Amino acid sequence: MTGSPLLADLIEALRCLPGVGGKSAQRMAFHLLERDRERGLKLAAALEQAMQRIGHCNRCRNFSEDPLCALCANSSRDRQVLCVVESPVDVAAIEQATGYRGQYFVLMGRLSPLDGLGPEELGLGLLTQRLGEGEIEEMIIATNPTVEGEATAHYLAQLARAGGIRPTRLAHGVPLGGELEFVDRGTLAHAFGRRQIVE
Amino acid sequence: MTGSPLLADLIEALRCLPGVGGKSAQRMAFHLLERDRERGLKLAAALEQAMQRIGHCNRCRNFSEDPLCALCANSSRDRQVLCVVESPVDVAAIEQATGYRGQYFVLMGRLSPLDGLGPEELGLGLLTQRLGEGEIEEMIIATNPTVEGEATAHYLAQLARAGGIRPTRLAHGVPLGGELEFVDRGTLAHAFGRRQIVE
Ligand SMILES: [Zn+2]
Ligand SMILES: [Zn+2]
Repeated sequence: MTGSPLLADLIEALRCLPGVGGKSAQRMAFHLLERDRERGLKLAAALEQAMQRIGHCNRCRNFSEDPLCALCANSSRDRQVLCVVESPVDVAAIEQATGYRGQYFVLMGRLSPLDGLGPEELGLGLLTQRLGEGEIEEMIIATNPTVEGEATAHYLAQLARAGGIRPTRLAHGVPLGGELEFVDRGTLAHAFGRRQIVE
Repeated sequence: MTGSPLLADLIEALRCLPGVGGKSAQRMAFHLLERDRERGLKLAAALEQAMQRIGHCNRCRNFSEDPLCALCANSSRDRQVLCVVESPVDVAAIEQATGYRGQYFVLMGRLSPLDGLGPEELGLGLLTQRLGEGEIEEMIIATNPTVEGEATAHYLAQLARAGGIRPTRLAHGVPLGGELEFVDRGTLAHAFGRRQIVE
């Protein structure tokens, strides 16, 4: 079709990116070849490094190439507040939208027995251990407002209370059934500021 | 922001892709890391190979990692017809949409004196040499119907005639399945003027 097997390979490989179909993969490949080979090579290197070297932080489970991620290693952040989220995108969204300066814990999922995701898969042992260290006073539960996210929030609130820690939840404002990642900054910042104690 | 410098690098590097902003770069990076590292590595390798090894076919100027591209090297294609296009995307579009089995010549641009694109930059010396070989009987001029594309087409038609070759142009008109009210005035006027007898 294109006359170049390497180009056909590239177009096919670009389709691994979410939201990229055949037409846009083709457009991307031509654009890089015609105008931006240097940045194409940089992207290749960045991809290889990221895929091979990024693992998970030993403390918060977020993506990290070091045993301790940059957020956990930052000694200027508040150690009394822990925000628990489902995914690294939620950490990025909260960091971008709010002035939050505390710690995080990333579940890398939500309780979902049908998908084989239980307390162990979500690292709740590590979380319990963390709560037992005695520094944390408030656990901000920022799971998504979906059925599974709410069930996970309920479970997390129990964990917090058992450890003598105050569980809070983001204020309403986050649309029901929506995902944090796609909430606009203003709404997210508002909801974050009005987080409420879980009764 | 993400806690991982390598991840921040990857998100930044993904923005070299046309149509990819910060949000979708982030989504792409997380998707690959969470679900598809193997395909991410494949994409890295495909990008590196393509950026480093793809040049231009010596005969048609299309992208090719070999001196002769796969289309030019294909001996089963008709050698009497040459289709001249502006860009490799046009070759791909024609190959996908039509049953064309002839040869191509890719200008990698259009005549545009203000951008420093003249006959030399478009490889018209190579094209003239090709026309002089004596095999080609028809030159299908498939430049885009823009002002510069039309000027280029005019120039190409003269080249063809000078070589005793029949120049042809794609038919203009109302797109199939298009609605008259949404067709631009110029196209509509053209299609109206060139109306044909219904057999
Ligand atoms: Zn961490
Ligand atoms: Zn060729």
